[in-house]
Amino acid sequence: MEDLFDFGKQALASQPFSVLVGAELLHFSQGRAELKIPIRPELKQQYGFVHGGVLSYAADNALTFAGGSVLGPGVVTSEFKINYLRPAIGDFLVARATVIYSSKNQAVCRCDVFVSNEGKESLCATSQGTIAKIDQSSDSKA
Amino acid sequence: MEDLFDFGKQALASQPFSVLVGAELLHFSQGRAELKIPIRPELKQQYGFVHGGVLSYAADNALTFAGGSVLGPGVVTSEFKINYLRPAIGDFLVARATVIYSSKNQAVCRCDVFVSNEGKESLCATSQGTIAKIDQSSDSKA
Amino acid sequence: MEDLFDFGKQALASQPFSVLVGAELLHFSQGRAELKIPIRPELKQQYGFVHGGVLSYAADNALTFAGGSVLGPGVVTSEFKINYLRPAIGDFLVARATVIYSSKNQAVCRCDVFVSNEGKESLCATSQGTIAKIDQSSDSKA
Amino acid sequence: MEDLFDFGKQALASQPFSVLVGAELLHFSQGRAELKIPIRPELKQQYGFVHGGVLSYAADNALTFAGGSVLGPGVVTSEFKINYLRPAIGDFLVARATVIYSSKNQAVCRCDVFVSNEGKESLCATSQGTIAKIDQSSDSKA
Repeated sequence: MEDLFDFGKQALASQPFSVLVGAELLHFSQGRAELKIPIRPELKQQYGFVHGGVLSYAADNALTFAGGSVLGPGVVTSEFKINYLRPAIGDFLVARATVIYSSKNQAVCRCDVFVSNEGKESLCATSQGTIAKIDQSSDSKA
Repeated sequence: MEDLFDFGKQALASQPFSVLVGAELLHFSQGRAELKIPIRPELKQQYGFVHGGVLSYAADNALTFAGGSVLGPGVVTSEFKINYLRPAIGDFLVARATVIYSSKNQAVCRCDVFVSNEGKESLCATSQGTIAKIDQSSDSKA
Repeated sequence: MEDLFDFGKQALASQPFSVLVGAELLHFSQGRAELKIPIRPELKQQYGFVHGGVLSYAADNALTFAGGSVLGPGVVTSEFKINYLRPAIGDFLVARATVIYSSKNQAVCRCDVFVSNEGKESLCATSQGTIAKIDQSSDSKA
Repeated sequence: MEDLFDFGKQALASQPFSVLVGAELLHFSQGRAELKIPIRPELKQQYGFVHGGVLSYAADNALTFAGGSVLGPGVVTSEFKINYLRPAIGDFLVARATVIYSSKNQAVCRCDVFVSNEGKESLCATSQGTIAKIDQSSDSKA
């Protein structure tokens, strides 16, 4: 388990865009992944809320990690859908993804994105998507 | 027309996250928006491709601009769905969004994201989503 | 509560397509709706499984009912997304929908569709969508 | 070409649910499929419009046919997303699906659903989804 978590932290650290956004791995185990993103001015849009693109990045990446936890490394998000629920204002985001179903080559996962504001969490987006093994599909964002 | 384009450029420049990503407005007119994102190392994932989160940001933001071109300023993406088609490798991304249908308070838009590599464009993601006027919904990512 | 359930049963019975499919209301309360669809030959596709269109009908309608349970009557599904997980083979389908988030005018809901085969339930599809009050949107499938 | 069309008509005729709904194949060629559904009272909901479940069936099935036109027989819809745009009132539905991208094992397709009313067509729903070869995924609605 510790190994999986360490592996996940290295994978995240090896993604330059995740470093640019400032994502941290909070939890990583069979079927479950949690990312944390401290909110800073660079991540906002013109009204002072976290930009939707940051929420979609968080959902996408947490979904990929959750899928990878059951499929192994070398996975990509094939597709996902996200509903934005509330403006994200606060101290940090937490994206919590779980595997709903998996087969040998792909996994369907769900991810809720919360914003934590002074210790209080609110759900600000919810998403659902498909993670695929790279080998099985040349249809990959990789 | 010129005014709408100028307005769009200012709106994009006022989004700190869009500045961080390096997005530029290529085109903005009634029912249509195009964003360009030069590809640089910070936008990649561990395999050297553009991170999916950048593609989803591009789709999300182009969808919002397209919706705003018919609904007026003060719009948010309510939801969207994206399919990743090919690894994005190249010089820059172009996200092209169009309005499929609009009513007084919301618009359904589509966005294709292309990667340009040495002058050749390839479709790397396709998306569809709903843009809503802020006033009409407190359900907003804003 | 009994009243809400009775109201829901009447609403379902007033939909000719739901009668054609053979849907029954199992549960209907604030934030939650369950539909049951007995599986019969007319609902299948060429391989003997329940047709995907029946699963998507079940998801769509359960989502609408869940949304209506918090928004009031006069709602429509604005959009939804569904992932098919397993071939549906068995005695009946159960679609279980819950409200994830609601505002005055719309609700984001989730629905899992199970197939029951000789008393054993399996998840065969999962979906997520937006339900809107009719008044608030002329964008309606109604 | 004629052979592909004949093959498609037989495939549709072999789906009992498609027969129940009354779907007809209008067009079927490499990368493109069109289904027609005459509107009759059994396909409506309580307000007299075509039930959303019929629109989602039409989209789902046209997507599957479009995918099958490039992947070969033995395909399933893995997932799709649909936005409902207008109430469907009229004489018949036409679902037009095209392949956006395909690899060896899957295809991403788009489908617009129109309603024809006294000779005038209106777009009433738009959808996007993934079609997969059955062999490649046990994740199938089949």
